[in-house]
Amino acid sequence: MKAEIIAVGTELLLGQIANTNAQFISKKLAEVGIDVLYHSVVGDNAARLAGLVETAQQRSDIIIFTGGLGPTKDDLTKETIARCMGKTLVENSEAMEQILAFFARRGTPMTENNRKQALVIEGSTVFPNDHGMAPGMAVESSGIRYLLFPGPPKELNPMFENYALPYLLSLSSDSQVVHSKVLRFYGIGESLLEEKLIDLIDGQSNPTIAPLANEAEVTIRITAKTDTTQKADEMISEVEKEIERRVGEFIYGYNQDSLHSVLVGKLKENGLTLSLAESCTGGLISHLITNIPGSSEVYAGGYVSYTEKAKVQALGVDPALTQKYGTVSEEVASAMAVQAKTNMSADIALSVTGVAGPGTVEGKPVGQIFIGVATATGEKVYSLKLSGTREGIQLRAAKYGMYYLLKELVNERN
Amino acid sequence: MKAEIIAVGTELLLGQIANTNAQFISKKLAEVGIDVLYHSVVGDNAARLAGLVETAQQRSDIIIFTGGLGPTKDDLTKETIARCMGKTLVENSEAMEQILAFFARRGTPMTENNRKQALVIEGSTVFPNDHGMAPGMAVESSGIRYLLFPGPPKELNPMFENYALPYLLSLSSDSQVVHSKVLRFYGIGESLLEEKLIDLIDGQSNPTIAPLANEAEVTIRITAKTDTTQKADEMISEVEKEIERRVGEFIYGYNQDSLHSVLVGKLKENGLTLSLAESCTGGLISHLITNIPGSSEVYAGGYVSYTEKAKVQALGVDPALTQKYGTVSEEVASAMAVQAKTNMSADIALSVTGVAGPGTVEGKPVGQIFIGVATATGEKVYSLKLSGTREGIQLRAAKYGMYYLLKELVNERN
Repeated sequence: MKAEIIAVGTELLLGQIANTNAQFISKKLAEVGIDVLYHSVVGDNAARLAGLVETAQQRSDIIIFTGGLGPTKDDLTKETIARCMGKTLVENSEAMEQILAFFARRGTPMTENNRKQALVIEGSTVFPNDHGMAPGMAVESSGIRYLLFPGPPKELNPMFENYALPYLLSLSSDSQVVHSKVLRFYGIGESLLEEKLIDLIDGQSNPTIAPLANEAEVTIRITAKTDTTQKADEMISEVEKEIERRVGEFIYGYNQDSLHSVLVGKLKENGLTLSLAESCTGGLISHLITNIPGSSEVYAGGYVSYTEKAKVQALGVDPALTQKYGTVSEEVASAMAVQAKTNMSADIALSVTGVAGPGTVEGKPVGQIFIGVATATGEKVYSLKLSGTREGIQLRAAKYGMYYLLKELVNERN
Repeated sequence: MKAEIIAVGTELLLGQIANTNAQFISKKLAEVGIDVLYHSVVGDNAARLAGLVETAQQRSDIIIFTGGLGPTKDDLTKETIARCMGKTLVENSEAMEQILAFFARRGTPMTENNRKQALVIEGSTVFPNDHGMAPGMAVESSGIRYLLFPGPPKELNPMFENYALPYLLSLSSDSQVVHSKVLRFYGIGESLLEEKLIDLIDGQSNPTIAPLANEAEVTIRITAKTDTTQKADEMISEVEKEIERRVGEFIYGYNQDSLHSVLVGKLKENGLTLSLAESCTGGLISHLITNIPGSSEVYAGGYVSYTEKAKVQALGVDPALTQKYGTVSEEVASAMAVQAKTNMSADIALSVTGVAGPGTVEGKPVGQIFIGVATATGEKVYSLKLSGTREGIQLRAAKYGMYYLLKELVNERN
């Protein structure tokens, strides 16, 4: 089945927002094996939208529209598409009830133009909007499926996942299911990972194995297509085992995991508290960890000891060390971790000191990073040479730090 | 002049990236008064791209292409477009020299497929690539302008600003210039700002005044269109003065400024050093400040005193205060700022303590934030009640903190 996505909204053509809806939908359709061949964007203009619909009808089996389902005069997607297929709009009672309930909760009267949002194209399968008022819909005409979604991502995304994907999967004539699992790696580059798995990647067509590098991390998506979910999971599991056998030490998580979410989880699991002493990462690790709700159970706190003064005066690093070895050194990284652990009475502490650039520090080159880990049983220091922009180096140093902590926690448990 | 943008790249159709190039170009074209009526995305497929070109030729005066200018077999944009207009490709000597110089710097031999990147459509105005190898180009055929750009934003964005925009402006028959200035606000909401300026916003057509809310901040873009840059700047300046008269106290910066970049600049200007004590913002302020290269000149360091223990043991807040008033209190915010200032021998210190959610803390509601500022002359504490998600509250608390610091620095100077 060939699909295309048409986004309706002048704000996109003015560059006020990026078309992240097309990205979201494309990603979801790729996962279930539906090919997307075109994206288009058009403004709130009925004639130009109708022109795009005519073109799309010549080349696609599924046409997906986003935006233009709201209550105002600008919102003309469903009216225009209904006209293109010679159908009328009818009021959907469930949607109307939801709109009335929304205004009742708010305690304000419903204005007449909101009634428009409950209209759907006749013969539609209606997708409820669990996070807003305008429902989505799917309707068939001359063998082509038209799917319409509201523009706000917080309404569209769950509607697409919960209602539209099952609808689309039910269309598939071979009634096969497509299942994916993402393996998340750290501490290994994309090219080395690919090298170690190249025979698997080249040899497999079902499940497919797709590596992707993003945000200084590498992921592998395993996708299986078969007739039951259980069989798909078994197929995935078999490939996963082989990948794990070869490069399992670099896998830190799965699907929606992040290094910081896994780290907070592992600390909770082990009943340990963490403290930090960050220099060149400037608070980034702390920021990532405190993004996770409930991190206060395991995160005691941290220092951003950005200057020598902060390292010595606030953190309590011996000034003899910073003077003898420099602030960017193995010795100071180790002392920073020990001090953070002691001062905050934490079970485990992580330190990062290094040169994020653009300038060098104390003659040390940009990208030189030392990471210290202090535990009950002693200290370890890792030395890294990273390249890239200031921001890139900060991000990778932060992620390496969390990765080393994770390894420590896994070792400790064993 | 009507323009449209065609992005070429299968990675867009797979949802691996969003079409931020179309957003960037649209924004730039809107600023100079060129209407963009369509965006399209197509994969690395010559026949489908040629189909889109044919459609575009029927409806646009300017067709802008992004992506597909690289060295590999997948890259087919210029070949396809040349074929559509019956032109050939010729080697551009400047581009070839740049590519050779690139490989010479690297010390690696140039592979033959890189030579392809120096090819341009015959008769093109060539846009040099200051951040990569493939040049951009503009070529005219049957009254339609075709502009081609490389896909990576770090190559496209400066090329578009520095070479393509002047080219496009030179096409404009009325030879008018369009100039914009962005005013950046903090401490005032979009609706209140609009209320205070509604007569100006409604009454003006040139310059136009456009408010926009984004990332917990409000901006106003003033855009003037006239025959010289100087006149445009004068027109903008006149409106700006009136806006400043009404809401000037909330303006913190202009154009590409951010709260953290302005803050680092003001600290440098005043020769002051800063330290931080963050609780609910979890290191976010520190992270933002250390994003700015050279921030180590003014940023001494900070604490992420996430727990009571960290506030008392590491930062040195009097435990009698945390016990009597709770960690989320005016008194503790003030003490945190004083301790951060003293411990790190800084000239000025900022503290944030509060409840980012999702749970309450010590019976204090989600969104209750106290911000402390300690200077040579004493301490101030600000109390805020914010709403939204955990991340939104953290971001707004961080930005309010930096805004209060900025106000302090401006007052100190006066």
